[in-house]
Amino acid sequence: MTDTAPAYTAPDATTRAAMLDTARFDAAGLIAAIAQQHDTGEILMLAWMNREALDETLRAGRVCYYSRSRGGLWRKGETSGQVQRLVDARLDCDRDAVLLLVDQTGVACHTGRRSCFFSAMRPTGLVETSAPLIAADTLYGRG
Amino acid sequence: MTDTAPAYTAPDATTRAAMLDTARFDAAGLIAAIAQQHDTGEILMLAWMNREALDETLRAGRVCYYSRSRGGLWRKGETSGQVQRLVDARLDCDRDAVLLLVDQTGVACHTGRRSCFFSAMRPTGLVETSAPLIAADTLYGRG
Repeated sequence: MTDTAPAYTAPDATTRAAMLDTARFDAAGLIAAIAQQHDTGEILMLAWMNREALDETLRAGRVCYYSRSRGGLWRKGETSGQVQRLVDARLDCDRDAVLLLVDQTGVACHTGRRSCFFSAMRPTGLVETSAPLIAADTLYGRG
Repeated sequence: MTDTAPAYTAPDATTRAAMLDTARFDAAGLIAAIAQQHDTGEILMLAWMNREALDETLRAGRVCYYSRSRGGLWRKGETSGQVQRLVDARLDCDRDAVLLLVDQTGVACHTGRRSCFFSAMRPTGLVETSAPLIAADTLYGRG
């Protein structure tokens, strides 16, 4: 996290509801969310949000996803401390995806890497483009 | 498109098949694909690929999506000329999303904007962060 990240101002409940009404959630009630580090442009991860998760994210200025495996809200960093502070949220042209410009504390990936996108598809096969910065056991307090 | 984009080397069919076997396509046979301009870090769009689209992309070095609305392969730029040349493709940690580092010719968005993510969710409501660079009619030859 940097101290220089732009301050985020939350829209009020009425404005949030009006904007969320324009978003197109899929049959499961979800929208794809891309997290990008606001200043470096690094893509950190792709996850999913339901309406409640996106509303909470816009309200709190801290990213909350919907965990499809756990079937509930997933407040990013709640266990690991690796939170994502929201800088800006942008819907795409057909309103079925959202780009989150964030300030990532530490690492985004559960493997301890900064980004989840580390398996490059190369002529020799899959190549890891980055190594873990933190051991997963340390990240989740089992170290 | 820049002349300085790194050259792409396609993996052979056997290597492509082995890598594609590790990808996790959803119940509809699709994987989410994020396109990012390789040198500026700009997020251009999010779309979907089936196995055939991802294989063609890796083979040809030119991005091919799967159009859910048309139900078939969507060779980006085939109509508009706004092609995406592949620089690198990276799977995420759970192998159900792919990040495409590309060299985008012209604009990615059908509205004539460089990026599809132009509707910022702000305290005053949705705010457009960019204007079209090309009229949509010009883009699709109806101008």
